Amino acid sequence: MRLTFIGSGNVATHMAAAFKNAGHRIVQVYSPNLHNASLLAYHVGAAATDNIADISADTGLFIISVKDDAIEQIAQTLASHQKLMVHTSGATSLDVLLKYTDKAGVLYPLQTFSKTREVDFLNVPLCIEAASDSIYADLQQFAATVSNRVYSINSAGRKILHLAAVFACNFPNYLYGVAQQLLAHHQLDFNLLRPLILETAEKVQQQAPASVQTGPAVRNDQSTMAAHLQLLHDEPQMQAIYTLLSQAIIKNNIDGRGDK
Amino acid sequence: MRLTFIGSGNVATHMAAAFKNAGHRIVQVYSPNLHNASLLAYHVGAAATDNIADISADTGLFIISVKDDAIEQIAQTLASHQKLMVHTSGATSLDVLLKYTDKAGVLYPLQTFSKTREVDFLNVPLCIEAASDSIYADLQQFAATVSNRVYSINSAGRKILHLAAVFACNFPNYLYGVAQQLLAHHQLDFNLLRPLILETAEKVQQQAPASVQTGPAVRNDQSTMAAHLQLLHDEPQMQAIYTLLSQAIIKNNIDGRGDK
Repeated sequence: MRLTFIGSGNVATHMAAAFKNAGHRIVQVYSPNLHNASLLAYHVGAAATDNIADISADTGLFIISVKDDAIEQIAQTLASHQKLMVHTSGATSLDVLLKYTDKAGVLYPLQTFSKTREVDFLNVPLCIEAASDSIYADLQQFAATVSNRVYSINSAGRKILHLAAVFACNFPNYLYGVAQQLLAHHQLDFNLLRPLILETAEKVQQQAPASVQTGPAVRNDQSTMAAHLQLLHDEPQMQAIYTLLSQAIIKNNIDGRGDK
Repeated sequence: MRLTFIGSGNVATHMAAAFKNAGHRIVQVYSPNLHNASLLAYHVGAAATDNIADISADTGLFIISVKDDAIEQIAQTLASHQKLMVHTSGATSLDVLLKYTDKAGVLYPLQTFSKTREVDFLNVPLCIEAASDSIYADLQQFAATVSNRVYSINSAGRKILHLAAVFACNFPNYLYGVAQQLLAHHQLDFNLLRPLILETAEKVQQQAPASVQTGPAVRNDQSTMAAHLQLLHDEPQMQAIYTLLSQAIIKNNIDGRGDK
């Protein structure tokens, strides 16, 4: 399939590489920053442009992977080409595209991408939504060329997933950073914690998080929690986080709300 | 080496298996619960007892792996045997043992253990402290028979590690559970998030957490954060967690305190 990428960020970069590797042809990459467009275009054998008027209509699919608040204007501009377009945003409704075209869909990869790190795209969940059953079928087939995990998710579900990903990815990563700061303040090596971080994530690949919860809060071990808060006496923000999350774990445990 | 395990919980179970596999002889397992003692003893070819007076002095090392507040009484009871003893607790000082014996040390495995899950012990950081240089050398050699990651950590450092592990393991696991609850409320499959959770942990195996932080907070994307809080309108506790952690990420990003 002939593909045009609008955007050259982390998501566009990883998707373009995966689709190229699967045998698709990336014809053009657009970015308002020509350097970024050229970098990605070079890697996937495409042409680059920073001029939205130069985006060619000779493509099978526009993949719009730009900041959420820039999607609508891109859609409006590209609609005249009358080609299928998808965006890749978790937080944006399909409706934003449907205002301008009925050849529209969403292809949301539920993964965290960094340019410096390879990702096994076969295991990246791809969440698909489409303006019609026939577009859905096309996108489903297209997505299956790069991923073994293709899901049908509507705009409301996608917003929940995007929110849940903040809890499952962004917040844990921040807490890893808090742990690293604590260690650094005491000249301790973050490598000490890395195996623990990985095992914590691996545990929930098969099991439910609530069923493998450990630590002082789930034991309601008040003396250890008091000692921890004392160690944090000059870190009020860490104290506030420790207190709120510990209280939530204690409450969750009592309520039995965790789906064990 | 001849070993006696005091305790039969997750830590004792995994350590006993690892040391037996490394060629050590587990002679006896004590637990106040005879069923638990027998279960572990059976797996490692040891004798079991629930009577503390029946713990044999014919051993090279007592490994005390019981609840923190039970360590001191065990140490007092075993001191008359005049054998080396270690505890395995992150939050407990070596001093608790030194009150009763000078043949004492700590062997703290910095990992989260579940009885239902195998752990590659070679990658488990073992944090060692000892009452003397010669005991330290013995423990170092002993620990190296099961782990490639043996560290010298004093009691103060160990307490910091134990606290940091709450931020790096217990709290992220709780947040995975929050994400699972959100998905369950909307009939979405937790499998959608599992690859993201794993990748988030794998990313920081090489990189610093602050350098790979993603999500609306680190972008200070106020409209997405407002939309997320709106989605959580009937979950005040999730809202409070979302707000506190997002504010912390924004502040951390501005301060540049994350050691990128």
